[in-house]
Amino acid sequence: LTEELFEKVPAPPEDYIRVPADKLKEFVKKVFMAYDVPEEDAEVTADVLVAADLRGIESHGVQRLKRYIDGLKNGVVKPRPNIKIVREGPTYALIDGDFGLGQPISWKAVKIAIEKAKKNYIGMVGVYHSNHHGIEGYWVMKMVEEDLIGLATTNTRPLAAPTGGLARVIGTNPIAFGAPTKTPPPLIVDMASTIVPSGKIEVYRRKAKPIPEGWVVGPDGKYITDPEKAMPAKGGILLPLGGLYELMGGHKGYCLNLILEVLSGVLTGSALSYDVGPTQGPKPSNVGHFFLAINVEAFMPLDKFKERMDELIKRLKSTPLHPEFKRIWIPGEKSYLTTQTRLKIGVPVYKKVYEEIKKIGEEVGVKFPE
Amino acid sequence: LTEELFEKVPAPPEDYIRVPADKLKEFVKKVFMAYDVPEEDAEVTADVLVAADLRGIESHGVQRLKRYIDGLKNGVVKPRPNIKIVREGPTYALIDGDFGLGQPISWKAVKIAIEKAKKNYIGMVGVYHSNHHGIEGYWVMKMVEEDLIGLATTNTRPLAAPTGGLARVIGTNPIAFGAPTKTPPPLIVDMASTIVPSGKIEVYRRKAKPIPEGWVVGPDGKYITDPEKAMPAKGGILLPLGGLYELMGGHKGYCLNLILEVLSGVLTGSALSYDVGPTQGPKPSNVGHFFLAINVEAFMPLDKFKERMDELIKRLKSTPLHPEFKRIWIPGEKSYLTTQTRLKIGVPVYKKVYEEIKKIGEEVGVKFPE
Repeated sequence: LTEELFEKVPAPPEDYIRVPADKLKEFVKKVFMAYDVPEEDAEVTADVLVAADLRGIESHGVQRLKRYIDGLKNGVVKPRPNIKIVREGPTYALIDGDFGLGQPISWKAVKIAIEKAKKNYIGMVGVYHSNHHGIEGYWVMKMVEEDLIGLATTNTRPLAAPTGGLARVIGTNPIAFGAPTKTPPPLIVDMASTIVPSGKIEVYRRKAKPIPEGWVVGPDGKYITDPEKAMPAKGGILLPLGGLYELMGGHKGYCLNLILEVLSGVLTGSALSYDVGPTQGPKPSNVGHFFLAINVEAFMPLDKFKERMDELIKRLKSTPLHPEFKRIWIPGEKSYLTTQTRLKIGVPVYKKVYEEIKKIGEEVGVKFPE
Repeated sequence: LTEELFEKVPAPPEDYIRVPADKLKEFVKKVFMAYDVPEEDAEVTADVLVAADLRGIESHGVQRLKRYIDGLKNGVVKPRPNIKIVREGPTYALIDGDFGLGQPISWKAVKIAIEKAKKNYIGMVGVYHSNHHGIEGYWVMKMVEEDLIGLATTNTRPLAAPTGGLARVIGTNPIAFGAPTKTPPPLIVDMASTIVPSGKIEVYRRKAKPIPEGWVVGPDGKYITDPEKAMPAKGGILLPLGGLYELMGGHKGYCLNLILEVLSGVLTGSALSYDVGPTQGPKPSNVGHFFLAINVEAFMPLDKFKERMDELIKRLKSTPLHPEFKRIWIPGEKSYLTTQTRLKIGVPVYKKVYEEIKKIGEEVGVKFPE
């Protein structure tokens, strides 16, 4: 099973090198520490980035290192923020991230959500004054590791249009959701509420491969298939899940996007997507996050819940197959198997990324593991 | 604005009669009471059904009366269930609906969620042993009327396939979400997690109009456009939002569907979609619901939250238009305007529906208002 996935790595071997995950993480951590980020914060930030590479989400892995470092260099991301709990009750908290790296802020928030859910069955934590916090799925994985149901969402800078609109006003606002199972892997959903996130366009651009019609429109409202022109910086406007028209449910993707904006943006007090800035500045990004941890024991014994999850998964996987498909996947299953493989054979780092992050390390005297 | 909507009523005037909403509601209420449903429970059930007609969601309105009455006649729906709170804490509760009508059960659950959120900032209520409870949006409207953020979801009988599968295993599991605004209408999302719910196919079937390619596949996996063959009873298999393939995000619709199944099904202890039965029997439906009410004052003053909602909506509505669109809609806005219109000029009841429900009334001596 893992071999099949390994074969699917979508690049020829000469395009990347493989680096052991722990060494890659140590490298990233040291780079952050060189920019005055405390060891504990550098540790979790590195863990989130390498977790993305392990799970096969390279767009959110170490290739983003430059953006975070640029943010720290420009002073819009603070290495030592004063993260404060602004409001708190038995089952909720609101956190001011003081414009630090999103990962240490969210780790603090998620630990609070976990603690409250363990004690009082629910933990709802909002965050404002934050930055990009890596893959959304990481945060629900942390809640699921503690046998809780986890929901995590964040708003992002504006990259997509609401149904009927023709401008980048709404974010790619991702939603992550996880639930523990008896048999691994747990169920982990991690997805943008647009058809694709901008990173996916970037992947096609690197390969000079046309993108499918329906993902992106240009300033004239027509579909774009040239990946170069589809990049947001070149005028590309992403579309919500369901696409441009209501006919295929584009308004539903837009609705999902708004649900996530209300929770992570409006409710937390952060910037709303149209005002969210990029990590590297010039203005502070002011992203908002929303975390919800649910202790299933409010409703039933944990074992029973896990058995019911296994039952659901078993039934889904035994669905007769559509002739064009080979398998029914459970959310998070591909990423789990990819992680198992990459923990053994190393994380692929593309040559271009390798050159870039190696140089970032050299600038502060941190050697890339080779 | 309302006139424009009125003009859009998609049927010629000779196809329907208009009935004042309050009289229609009174009729429905009396029919339920004739089947031994207590007045208070009949009242809320009638209110939910007529609210669907008022909002323009006729598929979930009084045309469903027969199904509920059939369920009561067959004994799979109990007119006087013993609804019990099985588990309870300051911010959560689990309710055994004892196979009553879904509406009175959910009304009890939502009142508890509201009460807990008002007092302790969060109210999370799960329900099992329930039945179809009408439009999902009704329940979040009740929470929003109390100035709370509301989330409601339910599982349904199996009508759709998971990504890669070719059998009706997952439900059309709807999600509803609402948030209060300073300026009406509030934001109200109410949508199935499939591209369309089965009621939409029924609408096309009645008009003998082909359905768009991409909504439904047949037992051979090919798209069906003949609305007759697309009906679930004839073998049609609905597709998740995003469609058949991962290319356009079909797996994301499937993921959303599973999130809702975990919350409303796995977590509550109800049947899971593949085991949920129809309202009219022969076996009890055992639907599950999940309600979450969030008191925004956990995070910020209510006025500030509402102002931020208005700001978001204003910005969305001022997005430059795509040349093929005339307006940016906010979730719930069309339904709100339709309600305003129909409260004035009456609810359209299609002739076929009129004949059917009139007869249902006559059977128990309740006269249809004319």
